[in-house]
Amino acid sequence: MTGAALDRLTRQLGYTFRDPQLLARALTHRSAGAANNERLEFLGDGLINFVVGEALFQARTAAEEGDLSRWRASLVCEESLARLADRLKLGDVLILGSGELKSGGFRRASILADTLEAVLGAVYLDGGFAPARETCLRLMQELLDQLPDAASLKDSKTRLQEFLQGRARPLPLYELLSAEGPPHEQWFTVRCRLADGAEGTEGRAGSRRGAEQEAAEKMLQLISEATHA
Amino acid sequence: MTGAALDRLTRQLGYTFRDPQLLARALTHRSAGAANNERLEFLGDGLINFVVGEALFQARTAAEEGDLSRWRASLVCEESLARLADRLKLGDVLILGSGELKSGGFRRASILADTLEAVLGAVYLDGGFAPARETCLRLMQELLDQLPDAASLKDSKTRLQEFLQGRARPLPLYELLSAEGPPHEQWFTVRCRLADGAEGTEGRAGSRRGAEQEAAEKMLQLISEATHA
Repeated sequence: MTGAALDRLTRQLGYTFRDPQLLARALTHRSAGAANNERLEFLGDGLINFVVGEALFQARTAAEEGDLSRWRASLVCEESLARLADRLKLGDVLILGSGELKSGGFRRASILADTLEAVLGAVYLDGGFAPARETCLRLMQELLDQLPDAASLKDSKTRLQEFLQGRARPLPLYELLSAEGPPHEQWFTVRCRLADGAEGTEGRAGSRRGAEQEAAEKMLQLISEATHA
Repeated sequence: MTGAALDRLTRQLGYTFRDPQLLARALTHRSAGAANNERLEFLGDGLINFVVGEALFQARTAAEEGDLSRWRASLVCEESLARLADRLKLGDVLILGSGELKSGGFRRASILADTLEAVLGAVYLDGGFAPARETCLRLMQELLDQLPDAASLKDSKTRLQEFLQGRARPLPLYELLSAEGPPHEQWFTVRCRLADGAEGTEGRAGSRRGAEQEAAEKMLQLISEATHA
């Protein structure tokens, strides 16, 4: 880890550590030894959840709790945190054990996302709540400014149900057609149909719920196409 | 809601609201109308999780992330929050719609726990992070001082696995014996056995995982009795 790379990280974070040891700890993956970033990750995870939740609460004054929760889950997830970590080039300053180093751990999304959480946990320990909140919001601002449509974050079964209720149609029916394969690798096929229609769709997945979601998604496409036609 | 009851609540919380309307909002269940406490509950839930997590991080400097997570989950759950709400007599100052009022909503654990979250969310909005953190810690202090043994919080399958690994015995095997009943009310029976032993236990539950947990718990009892005998 070079001084130049750390200076760049500090600049991009917009926060200078009083105790640089805390930052070094935050950048140390558990594969590199006992003095690693797992506890800081726990702290940072709670911080990000709260700070992003509060930002959504303040920005969307008319949104219901369910939408706030779904937005938060979409922002505070491995995928989006790993992307932010990537922008900060955390992979370049990560301290990994030799095994993770060889297997490319510096590119792994879960390690990058956890490290970002640990860095924010370290900012909180080093500087307190206000600087940690500001740093977190600076990193998340772009995502907060470009929130997806709340409805698009609902799962397919929920969206199908709401679509039908809005048109005073009966609820969809899900029927398990088959469950095949050995116990630990079962494969489920589910049919979704509407009591007032002849339409039927099928979903297949490794869990019953997954198969229902797929069948619901197909039904949504089928009936929204029919509605727009 | 009488002034005396509110005064008592304020004293017990140890926090006086600058804006009493925020407290009133926090005490209003969704059954009482659109201006309810659901958004404040979302805010307070994130606050409590973060503050309790940080308190555990600070108090248990040698604990691993997994133990911190399990402790937090045991402290920040409906059951313990409802008990704290009960101690604050939130049921006496809760504002409910007539339906919930008739059906005894002021005693319902989920409503009490949600209301406590909303009250802490309101303290945060009214006074900022430091007072909200202090209020939260004051309420949770007794629970934080009496943390259960970390091992006792692990689920039965995990505890059984660790018990066996500590004795260099092979992992337990779980076998699905039957799945009965109609699709939405299936009932699973699972057998747990040890590859190096003749012992076997059975668990039955409405989910496969639940049945495995029950079988594991029985196996733990069986072999720890045998060990102590």
